[in-house]
Amino acid sequence: MPDACPDRAALLAARLAATRARSVTLTDGLSAEDMVVQSMPDASPVKWHLAHTTWFFETFVLGPHAGQPPHDPAWAYLFNSYYVAAGDRHPRPRRGLVTRPGVAEVLDWRAQVDRRLAAFLESGPAAEALDLIDLGIAHEQQHQELLLTDLKHLLAQNPLRYLLRPAGPGTDDRVPGGLPPLGWVEHPGGLVEVGHAGPGFAYDNEGPRHRVWLEPFALADRPVTCGEWLAFMADGGYATPSLWLSDGWAAVQAEGWRAPLYWRDAGDGDWRVFTLSGERRPDPAEPVAHVSQYEADAFARWAAGVHAGSSSPAGLGTRLPTEAEWETVAALRAPSGTFADAGRYHPAPLSGPSWYGEVWDWTASAYLPYPGFRTAAGAVGEYNGKFMSGQMVLRGGSCATPTGHVRPTYRNFFPPAARWQFSGLRLAR
Amino acid sequence: MPDACPDRAALLAARLAATRARSVTLTDGLSAEDMVVQSMPDASPVKWHLAHTTWFFETFVLGPHAGQPPHDPAWAYLFNSYYVAAGDRHPRPRRGLVTRPGVAEVLDWRAQVDRRLAAFLESGPAAEALDLIDLGIAHEQQHQELLLTDLKHLLAQNPLRYLLRPAGPGTDDRVPGGLPPLGWVEHPGGLVEVGHAGPGFAYDNEGPRHRVWLEPFALADRPVTCGEWLAFMADGGYATPSLWLSDGWAAVQAEGWRAPLYWRDAGDGDWRVFTLSGERRPDPAEPVAHVSQYEADAFARWAAGVHAGSSSPAGLGTRLPTEAEWETVAALRAPSGTFADAGRYHPAPLSGPSWYGEVWDWTASAYLPYPGFRTAAGAVGEYNGKFMSGQMVLRGGSCATPTGHVRPTYRNFFPPAARWQFSGLRLAR
Amino acid sequence: MPDACPDRAALLAARLAATRARSVTLTDGLSAEDMVVQSMPDASPVKWHLAHTTWFFETFVLGPHAGQPPHDPAWAYLFNSYYVAAGDRHPRPRRGLVTRPGVAEVLDWRAQVDRRLAAFLESGPAAEALDLIDLGIAHEQQHQELLLTDLKHLLAQNPLRYLLRPAGPGTDDRVPGGLPPLGWVEHPGGLVEVGHAGPGFAYDNEGPRHRVWLEPFALADRPVTCGEWLAFMADGGYATPSLWLSDGWAAVQAEGWRAPLYWRDAGDGDWRVFTLSGERRPDPAEPVAHVSQYEADAFARWAAGVHAGSSSPAGLGTRLPTEAEWETVAALRAPSGTFADAGRYHPAPLSGPSWYGEVWDWTASAYLPYPGFRTAAGAVGEYNGKFMSGQMVLRGGSCATPTGHVRPTYRNFFPPAARWQFSGLRLAR
Amino acid sequence: MPDACPDRAALLAARLAATRARSVTLTDGLSAEDMVVQSMPDASPVKWHLAHTTWFFETFVLGPHAGQPPHDPAWAYLFNSYYVAAGDRHPRPRRGLVTRPGVAEVLDWRAQVDRRLAAFLESGPAAEALDLIDLGIAHEQQHQELLLTDLKHLLAQNPLRYLLRPAGPGTDDRVPGGLPPLGWVEHPGGLVEVGHAGPGFAYDNEGPRHRVWLEPFALADRPVTCGEWLAFMADGGYATPSLWLSDGWAAVQAEGWRAPLYWRDAGDGDWRVFTLSGERRPDPAEPVAHVSQYEADAFARWAAGVHAGSSSPAGLGTRLPTEAEWETVAALRAPSGTFADAGRYHPAPLSGPSWYGEVWDWTASAYLPYPGFRTAAGAVGEYNGKFMSGQMVLRGGSCATPTGHVRPTYRNFFPPAARWQFSGLRLAR
Repeated sequence: MPDACPDRAALLAARLAATRARSVTLTDGLSAEDMVVQSMPDASPVKWHLAHTTWFFETFVLGPHAGQPPHDPAWAYLFNSYYVAAGDRHPRPRRGLVTRPGVAEVLDWRAQVDRRLAAFLESGPAAEALDLIDLGIAHEQQHQELLLTDLKHLLAQNPLRYLLRPAGPGTDDRVPGGLPPLGWVEHPGGLVEVGHAGPGFAYDNEGPRHRVWLEPFALADRPVTCGEWLAFMADGGYATPSLWLSDGWAAVQAEGWRAPLYWRDAGDGDWRVFTLSGERRPDPAEPVAHVSQYEADAFARWAAGVHAGSSSPAGLGTRLPTEAEWETVAALRAPSGTFADAGRYHPAPLSGPSWYGEVWDWTASAYLPYPGFRTAAGAVGEYNGKFMSGQMVLRGGSCATPTGHVRPTYRNFFPPAARWQFSGLRLAR
Repeated sequence: MPDACPDRAALLAARLAATRARSVTLTDGLSAEDMVVQSMPDASPVKWHLAHTTWFFETFVLGPHAGQPPHDPAWAYLFNSYYVAAGDRHPRPRRGLVTRPGVAEVLDWRAQVDRRLAAFLESGPAAEALDLIDLGIAHEQQHQELLLTDLKHLLAQNPLRYLLRPAGPGTDDRVPGGLPPLGWVEHPGGLVEVGHAGPGFAYDNEGPRHRVWLEPFALADRPVTCGEWLAFMADGGYATPSLWLSDGWAAVQAEGWRAPLYWRDAGDGDWRVFTLSGERRPDPAEPVAHVSQYEADAFARWAAGVHAGSSSPAGLGTRLPTEAEWETVAALRAPSGTFADAGRYHPAPLSGPSWYGEVWDWTASAYLPYPGFRTAAGAVGEYNGKFMSGQMVLRGGSCATPTGHVRPTYRNFFPPAARWQFSGLRLAR
Repeated sequence: MPDACPDRAALLAARLAATRARSVTLTDGLSAEDMVVQSMPDASPVKWHLAHTTWFFETFVLGPHAGQPPHDPAWAYLFNSYYVAAGDRHPRPRRGLVTRPGVAEVLDWRAQVDRRLAAFLESGPAAEALDLIDLGIAHEQQHQELLLTDLKHLLAQNPLRYLLRPAGPGTDDRVPGGLPPLGWVEHPGGLVEVGHAGPGFAYDNEGPRHRVWLEPFALADRPVTCGEWLAFMADGGYATPSLWLSDGWAAVQAEGWRAPLYWRDAGDGDWRVFTLSGERRPDPAEPVAHVSQYEADAFARWAAGVHAGSSSPAGLGTRLPTEAEWETVAALRAPSGTFADAGRYHPAPLSGPSWYGEVWDWTASAYLPYPGFRTAAGAVGEYNGKFMSGQMVLRGGSCATPTGHVRPTYRNFFPPAARWQFSGLRLAR
Repeated sequence: MPDACPDRAALLAARLAATRARSVTLTDGLSAEDMVVQSMPDASPVKWHLAHTTWFFETFVLGPHAGQPPHDPAWAYLFNSYYVAAGDRHPRPRRGLVTRPGVAEVLDWRAQVDRRLAAFLESGPAAEALDLIDLGIAHEQQHQELLLTDLKHLLAQNPLRYLLRPAGPGTDDRVPGGLPPLGWVEHPGGLVEVGHAGPGFAYDNEGPRHRVWLEPFALADRPVTCGEWLAFMADGGYATPSLWLSDGWAAVQAEGWRAPLYWRDAGDGDWRVFTLSGERRPDPAEPVAHVSQYEADAFARWAAGVHAGSSSPAGLGTRLPTEAEWETVAALRAPSGTFADAGRYHPAPLSGPSWYGEVWDWTASAYLPYPGFRTAAGAVGEYNGKFMSGQMVLRGGSCATPTGHVRPTYRNFFPPAARWQFSGLRLAR
């Protein structure tokens, strides 16, 4: 770790202020009611995200490094997420029962902590504290994306959206575009290096950088789009067990999946997609979002032409990429497309190659430690490592990810059945 | 039913206005966040109660009798509780997911409906409409009690209440009183009449009035108090299977019951009771509340002295009364004690006989139709009759019941495991 | 209780031997595999019934009254059903996991206990012991009926019965009879006495005998038949929520009920009924069996003509009888029809009045204690009393009930959703 | 695939006969009752294993390659496990409800199919059919191991084993040995090849053979033993959340894990281990079995010395090996120790290096397809590929694995929470 560094502190102060302000801006237009309710155990209330990110700075920075007591010790119980070493915490499925402290109190607390952090950064903190603020900024950016996806899930539960109120005029009458061109980036394979090393910030789970042997492969230069997904659906994709992993097929049957999450059939296969700005028809040129890893895997198997009579868009042999394949190719490409800063919060139609933006790409890789991985000591060491079981890796970023938050080595992860993130897929072969 | 009656309309208008205003007054001091969250499937959000009672008047009075369309047809889906004949409805466990329309919109709607009802009542409505307004007032009073018990359940979920914040100074230092005197009202039995008949309002389930044969019995002149309940607990009441019905013992084990709902052990049996105005020590003179019918039944069996070594307060042979026994005695007694209008929302200590107030009395009677009972035609016929299975009758009223809402023939009913109402017991023998 | 009585002992010895032998005879044709498996938590394996009834005599008679140690103390843990005072016991849902001791060992144990009981009865036992043997005989008869209904449930789970193997030739080609005549027994009401009193054996829950006031009523002279049930089904009985109790409708939807248990649609409403001797078409003249109390209640409401357009067989105003109404009329009628001794184990077609045989009659009465009821001391006191919650009373008997086991005061009870007994209904009005 | 080959057919005929006979021999001493019951949804009845393996030959060999109809088409529904392409099948959790056909019928069917297979093998079948018989032998060997682990689970459910009957004299009085020596096999890392290639039989999931880059590592030359596991337990291993994956800790709390499956505390930490030949004290020199991958992972983290105050047996830096590391080292070692043929069905104490026998070794690798893996066409293609999600790889073999069934490339797999297999672990660093 570097020594204390005034320039770094000033830079961090600016990034911190912008990031903290952005979390609040995301709630523009929301009522206190919108911000307190929890729509499922996997999701959290908007207010909880605002509070938890504040607790993070109070607990890991202002307490140990500035010697400041917390605003209210009782709140630590409410707003600790999963850090066992940081004390007992409120059970996750009960986050939505906390009507007090209210949104206004939490916003006051945020402002107070922001002031204390700014003062602390002017006091010449040690590098270790700066590292933790860097981590706190990344942590808050992650929660900004979750805030949006959790909010979307909540709003989608309101039956007035789906059952009774038509979307506003004009949202459905766009001329749907055709499929965008699909290119393949060929890679000769061989011994490559993946994972984070070097001076910039990265989470612990992105390292150590290490060697991996790859066989020759090709990676699609854009994600799968709604047009391709509609072809998969029309070809019986959701009704053909041979396309599916056993657990995936069980989920299809138990959950009644017939399309991605947030799609509804307005009649005779005339699909509508719920977005944070209303319902619309799926655009064939737009990357498909809100699919599980099971669905992504089934699509790739279908696209491989295994399925008799398949009208596969990609020819024989497609599959999901491994995370090492993805990183090896994507490390050479610049981020492009839609991120959260655009305020669109929905994938945009494509006309050519696309990397990092729009939707996360599910991979074929289980989320496991890299060779030589060690968790950090203390509560911060619980950040990533203890979740390395039962989850699959996603790579890239999405229309809900803050622009500066993406990098080639970033490892996002969710259980293979999760669908409420902006999760899509990119084919390999 | 009587014909149109101007005096009755004017009287109803006054009662209606007072009742409607009181529902809103009950929410004084609550935030919008407090009013939107649902704490369990059995409970409803405060906002939902405000909206549902409004929907009731719109649907059963203003629509069919004043020819007025609803404010928003979509809201009928959200705020219908269980009237199948009134159309599809939002599933009960999902009432807490409705963040929009917000509290402010619902309050506007209430005011608008109140104005329309007032105008309608001045227009000389037919008796049938007046009957429905009478029903609507009673319905709203019932929901006022539920609003309070549901709100109490929600606030009790907040861990800051229980785990981390001491009750304010002064609430715990009262000198506990002794047990109030217990008298027995003897009744010689014989052929009695029970049930509603006559001009005043009553729910359909209170009739027809009919004859019942009673054996001689006696009924306690006050409910069981916390002091008596503490003796039951100290004598191993919650650990002695022979005192319990089989289903009750299963609930004790599955739910880990060791005391009434909202009691917590502050250490070594030093109990605290959560109330809507803070935590306090249980007062021995105060009727015990928030017990299930299973617990009430076990207490009565314990009090009967069946349990070896029992220090029963009541001597041999106690049991829960039947609803006919209760009504026969209580019909001759005037209501007294604490009702919702006192704003206390917690049972008060007793010093003598007590009827109708403080806590509901669980009975030994299953909630079943009286001989000759017929459900009314149409959706209003679903009010009571279809719940006549699997529930037990409670009689009287409570500290959360509006004063004018009690009467000797009133049949309240809940499943025997329910504890979140102000439910207590009165012994018979 | 009477003093020791040699004649009574000899009489009991004969009845005991016949009853015990009959339990074993019921298993003729069963493999050990058929006798060990448990098909659902509510049911028990055949072997368990054989063992539990033996444990009953060992525990309540041979131990305390003959001073004999149990054959194997460990077996008491396995074969105690629910007597808390008789020690810990194996959880009910795990009865099917007990492959050892095997059927042969259990039969040896039975024979040994039979010999010991016979010797004990010759030794001049006291009246108290004779009473317990009387209870043990009744207990074993009850378990004979459960053995048959549990076995039927198990065999019905085997998919070869339903899915793949046609019933044998000839079972389906009977000419279906018409509906049998339906008469009504009118009763003027008034003060009647119900419940057991007097010298003969009865369970504790049948007393004390007590007075009940009845309004005038009429009771059907036979149960509802399959022909009537088919009319209810054809008239949309299972698809009309207004006919159902709220809990009943929830069960219809959750369980997908469209017909009685063991009925299957062989195509286009051509129903087949699974019986212990194969599948057959439902006979219109045969009492309907295997319906829940919810279904019985819905049928009665349908038959009352509440349902618009109803082709009710019974005219206006039908309902289920109360148990007091049932007993008052049935006490004057002699048992007739099919009981277990016929070996048919399925209701027979009717051509006139029918009492006690064929199917149990669900009543409108919750299973609650009679006025003055007290449980007996000790473990035997757990026989009936602790189940007086959440269940409904059935009266009469069935084609699986041993002939001598029926009497007017007999109170059978099951939860209202239970369907695997031979439960039907008889209308009142 | 090779062409038809008479010598291969003769060889296969001998192996087939021996394998088929062994399945029946495994059931010596079992009653029909022991063979019909299913103790949990993950396990199957012994009879089902005998039938399913027979169905496999009938369906995949005798039908398509010998043109022979099945013995009973209805049985295909009962005894298909999960092959969607082979038709509908009986739900797995209901396998224990099939009391008919009985054990005797199934054994007759086995003998008949054995005769038909022998005749078919003498008829000069094509290579494709021989390949399927090879697969069928491997399949039957796998089921032999499952038969033993499922049977062990069933017998362990019988409370007489645990609660009431002491183990026979002599089983508990052995002088426990000390820990066996632990050596480390060092490997320099680099580019290695793993996976199956070549003429011998292997499952499809073992290929294609491919290159993997390894960093330098060392692998323990024997599994972890009960002595080491007792030290982990004594050091609070099951009570220290920082040692556990998040899902693992959730399982510890939900399931109440305090020791491996089949261990019980006879008082004050005096542990007993249930085995197929009775209860005994855990031998410190015996490999620990019946631990989940979560427990194996927690042990490795504890052994790494991360836990403050740890008395780790292995020094810093231990972890579970990857499957590539395991295979690279184990491919050079000969199988040794206890396999199913020894009839011991429990791991034996070690005195030095041990490979393949005693217990399966959990690895750190998720069960995923190798690069270039393709599923075979048709129902046989469902054998392995569709389970490549949510499971972890085990390597080696166990005391319940047939001797000839192990090889370096063999990939066994179970969910990380599974404990009823003979699953242990071997450390890497």
